[in-house]
Amino acid sequence: MTTTTAQPTTISGTKIVLGKNQYGKAEVRLVKITRDTARHEIEDLNVTSQLHGDFEAAHTEGDNSRVVPTDTQKNTVYGLARDGVGSPEDLLRRLGDHFTTNFDWVSGGRWAAEQYFWDRIQDHDHAFSRNKSEVRTAVLEIVDGEKTLLAGLSGLTVLKSTGSEFHGFPVDRYTTLKETSDRILATDVSARWRYSAAASAATDTDFNGIYTSVHELLLQAFAQTHSLALQQTMFEMGRLVLETHPQIEEIRFSLPNNHHFLVDLTPFGQDNPQEIFFAADRPYGLIEASIQREGHGPSHPIWENAAGFC
Amino acid sequence: MTTTTAQPTTISGTKIVLGKNQYGKAEVRLVKITRDTARHEIEDLNVTSQLHGDFEAAHTEGDNSRVVPTDTQKNTVYGLARDGVGSPEDLLRRLGDHFTTNFDWVSGGRWAAEQYFWDRIQDHDHAFSRNKSEVRTAVLEIVDGEKTLLAGLSGLTVLKSTGSEFHGFPVDRYTTLKETSDRILATDVSARWRYSAAASAATDTDFNGIYTSVHELLLQAFAQTHSLALQQTMFEMGRLVLETHPQIEEIRFSLPNNHHFLVDLTPFGQDNPQEIFFAADRPYGLIEASIQREGHGPSHPIWENAAGFC
Amino acid sequence: MTTTTAQPTTISGTKIVLGKNQYGKAEVRLVKITRDTARHEIEDLNVTSQLHGDFEAAHTEGDNSRVVPTDTQKNTVYGLARDGVGSPEDLLRRLGDHFTTNFDWVSGGRWAAEQYFWDRIQDHDHAFSRNKSEVRTAVLEIVDGEKTLLAGLSGLTVLKSTGSEFHGFPVDRYTTLKETSDRILATDVSARWRYSAAASAATDTDFNGIYTSVHELLLQAFAQTHSLALQQTMFEMGRLVLETHPQIEEIRFSLPNNHHFLVDLTPFGQDNPQEIFFAADRPYGLIEASIQREGHGPSHPIWENAAGFC
Amino acid sequence: MTTTTAQPTTISGTKIVLGKNQYGKAEVRLVKITRDTARHEIEDLNVTSQLHGDFEAAHTEGDNSRVVPTDTQKNTVYGLARDGVGSPEDLLRRLGDHFTTNFDWVSGGRWAAEQYFWDRIQDHDHAFSRNKSEVRTAVLEIVDGEKTLLAGLSGLTVLKSTGSEFHGFPVDRYTTLKETSDRILATDVSARWRYSAAASAATDTDFNGIYTSVHELLLQAFAQTHSLALQQTMFEMGRLVLETHPQIEEIRFSLPNNHHFLVDLTPFGQDNPQEIFFAADRPYGLIEASIQREGHGPSHPIWENAAGFC
Repeated sequence: MTTTTAQPTTISGTKIVLGKNQYGKAEVRLVKITRDTARHEIEDLNVTSQLHGDFEAAHTEGDNSRVVPTDTQKNTVYGLARDGVGSPEDLLRRLGDHFTTNFDWVSGGRWAAEQYFWDRIQDHDHAFSRNKSEVRTAVLEIVDGEKTLLAGLSGLTVLKSTGSEFHGFPVDRYTTLKETSDRILATDVSARWRYSAAASAATDTDFNGIYTSVHELLLQAFAQTHSLALQQTMFEMGRLVLETHPQIEEIRFSLPNNHHFLVDLTPFGQDNPQEIFFAADRPYGLIEASIQREGHGPSHPIWENAAGFC
Repeated sequence: MTTTTAQPTTISGTKIVLGKNQYGKAEVRLVKITRDTARHEIEDLNVTSQLHGDFEAAHTEGDNSRVVPTDTQKNTVYGLARDGVGSPEDLLRRLGDHFTTNFDWVSGGRWAAEQYFWDRIQDHDHAFSRNKSEVRTAVLEIVDGEKTLLAGLSGLTVLKSTGSEFHGFPVDRYTTLKETSDRILATDVSARWRYSAAASAATDTDFNGIYTSVHELLLQAFAQTHSLALQQTMFEMGRLVLETHPQIEEIRFSLPNNHHFLVDLTPFGQDNPQEIFFAADRPYGLIEASIQREGHGPSHPIWENAAGFC
Repeated sequence: MTTTTAQPTTISGTKIVLGKNQYGKAEVRLVKITRDTARHEIEDLNVTSQLHGDFEAAHTEGDNSRVVPTDTQKNTVYGLARDGVGSPEDLLRRLGDHFTTNFDWVSGGRWAAEQYFWDRIQDHDHAFSRNKSEVRTAVLEIVDGEKTLLAGLSGLTVLKSTGSEFHGFPVDRYTTLKETSDRILATDVSARWRYSAAASAATDTDFNGIYTSVHELLLQAFAQTHSLALQQTMFEMGRLVLETHPQIEEIRFSLPNNHHFLVDLTPFGQDNPQEIFFAADRPYGLIEASIQREGHGPSHPIWENAAGFC
Repeated sequence: MTTTTAQPTTISGTKIVLGKNQYGKAEVRLVKITRDTARHEIEDLNVTSQLHGDFEAAHTEGDNSRVVPTDTQKNTVYGLARDGVGSPEDLLRRLGDHFTTNFDWVSGGRWAAEQYFWDRIQDHDHAFSRNKSEVRTAVLEIVDGEKTLLAGLSGLTVLKSTGSEFHGFPVDRYTTLKETSDRILATDVSARWRYSAAASAATDTDFNGIYTSVHELLLQAFAQTHSLALQQTMFEMGRLVLETHPQIEEIRFSLPNNHHFLVDLTPFGQDNPQEIFFAADRPYGLIEASIQREGHGPSHPIWENAAGFC
């Protein structure tokens, strides 16, 4: 994003200026059918395009001479997809190149996509059912000509019915939680990994292959880690991904602790040996961290703009 | 539900009375882990219990002497689940029997459940990931001691990328739609099938097996029917289910027509041979019907109370 | 809806036929600006049109010669709205008359609308902010030429911080709830009232005026009833509406009991004199009833089709 | 958040370490009734508490000796609320002080709240209806002992039925949008304003009063600005707030452009003089910016953590 200094507006000694800004079209729903053969392929995406650059006059004077309409950005998504999608990351890079090349006041931008998965129905050539168990995500940011890519997944809900403990925590006036050596551990995995600058720019990075691998590694680490804390499980998930994929410099997680409370059946004359649970909605624990390679700085600029603007 | 005549309250000649009514606890979130062996099983349900009977005094006088608390109904869900779930239908029948047997003023009721599916992670003994592609549903209604069961599924999203036409429709002043011999057909399947009285009561009805079969039959009919109308596809889906399962007397569908509009790329100098589509949100077509065995009456009473009260 | 007997399809002795059915366009988002003067008015609706009639051939043969396209139904909503909305009920009646008059195989149908409210911003002529505190609803069903109208509201969330008790209920093995003489009573009001056949058909029924009055009466009865049970409060709400409006024959409610649990602060050395509550999500009580004029039958056919099809 | 260097885990030459992290309890639903007099007051919040500090051992070794349980954080919300809420900002500051004072390894944190509004029903002493038209938000971050506060609102939906133009934009191969000098302008306002360090720390900052004022100023600027671009309207909204409230250093907006498309009624033989619109769901324009006082740096650290972690 670009910080510009607007024509100063001084009322009672105050100058108010435009800071960071971006604009574009959000949630362009794109379904691409590849029908080169009778056996069709489907790609289903939700694409957002946002431009950075010199848009100050639009804000301060309503001068739209540099405002590439959001409608045009939508059209461009469809136009570029006509030549194929390939991977969300590839499509986003082509969008980013298009806008930064064709409009000299566009200095960069943020392009994002969600991808939805479909399974073939009973090996049929052109019938599919949607697999809703997770959503794939991608974000590209271009700043000063350099691309940074975040890939990710969200909504992957996992649960372990044992192999999870929680004890040894500090106790104060407000502590009523009991220690446990056997609890249900459940979460909805939201993860985003940041590709190195080289991998973000390279034309041969296998984004689809890495996605599939990361998905399996996350499941593997979740399943196989005997958990003393959700933090520990999360760190193992990240470590396994980073050890396996040198193109990834950092992975971040936001993991709700989806509480499953053991129901007290003793008033009804029944025992409950870790069998009957109440799955609670709110509140929930929320465990978040970045796992990264050593020597890395405290934060990369893409994160500020990744999750939301305000 | 029971229609009772409340103590008449006459103001300006009007007698206002209590009509149909029901009450209970909705959305009791129950997770049952079966851990008889190291290889755990998980059952994940959302259960609603509602009682019918003589509850007039609670309405007209605030007399709760017959109001089995909704909190007690929740506790009963957990208590009965301690002895196993088996199938949603089985649990609902045990709940229905419990309340109608133990409280003589409870004449019947409505018990419902959603079931959520989990897949085992990488064949792990006690780690699971949630399969969100569909939700299984069940409703039991007891009236005058007779049980009627509805089973169903919702949220099963399917799409055919070809093999669907729509033409030959009437044209009037408001018609702007063009005929097509090749369109995307997509819907979110909500289906409910009603078991016969015998199958609803029989202890050996294989509700889990029938569910699995119906799920596959619905996918099969959707995929294999060359569609001239979503109505036609729907009828074939229902016919296949009824022809296969004699325990089912009727199946109802509510099928949105999830429109995928071909994007006009000609202004950009591109063709679009059924490849690039805009997936629209609203409005959507909505196609609904009951498919049933001949000789059946126009409607069964359970449907009035199945979808909602008001 | 129409029950027809499809061309019998007999496989293994089973004849499968089409039962009740309806189809149309759902959720047509219509915003109407009335700009006869500089002081604009806004009407914001979400309209659904569904036709009943002889549509059997579409289901069994894919013959669309009687299928008025759902796209045409959408266009008709916009076309008829061009001449004004007035009230949701008025627009629905004009839609119903249009389709049953212009297509002789359309025997009736179901037309529904949600209306969203907007407040004027600081008395500005053409700037509005949306009031989201409730949604107005309307359903028209035409059967055999006779109109029945349901009006309603949903999502009206109300709470009393005292003046609510709950005790005197039966106790069994599963009862752990304690009696209380002071609790928070909170609910999201969903209500639908059915107009008499005469009021449904009359051109001078003041649907907007009655809506405003019912809204105020519901709030008044909720606030002023000292509650011994949510059932009792609900009955008073219904009674007040029916006593005031002779055009209304019946009113139905679906009221979740939004539980607010007193937090036990004694472990922290604090009292809690009904001040600090946890607002729970699930489960919740669910209290439902019809309040009606005496002599009424157990149920009116419109209810089966009002809330959903399957 | 704290960046720490975990015990290096080197596999194939890679050292993987813990970066930024935070954890806590999210969405603690708190309802506070003040009943000092018969005329009750209600405060309804959704509170999230997240701690920053030295939590590395929990991640790398499952050592919870420094992990203040999220359950304890929840209890603390209720315990501190017993002494009153006042404003969301006040409660968050007391939570922040509590955790950073009582646990020496807690270096800071992030505390957030949503507040829901209730209106009194017909001037009743203890009956309320929820005003859902907007949600008030607050975020406190403590870093190195310094507090930074963001206040905000979300979900405030506004619309102008005229007084909005859009033209003069660049045209390229993908441009199909037509210029307009009269369109509907509609958005859902999400805004967050950052208080200066002094105002964030001062005990006499009138957060409730400023909130009320900002809400009115945003509506005023939206209504009164003749709009040539949503960017221009947004800038005016921000400028008015900053000019009025010296305690606010910066305000950020995320404004969807909720498209209302004029329906083409000419095929039906009707005109449409800006009266009948289709309110679209997706895609939508998305206009985002920071408006700030001159001399300000490009970004403040709180924004990275404000909207989400990954």
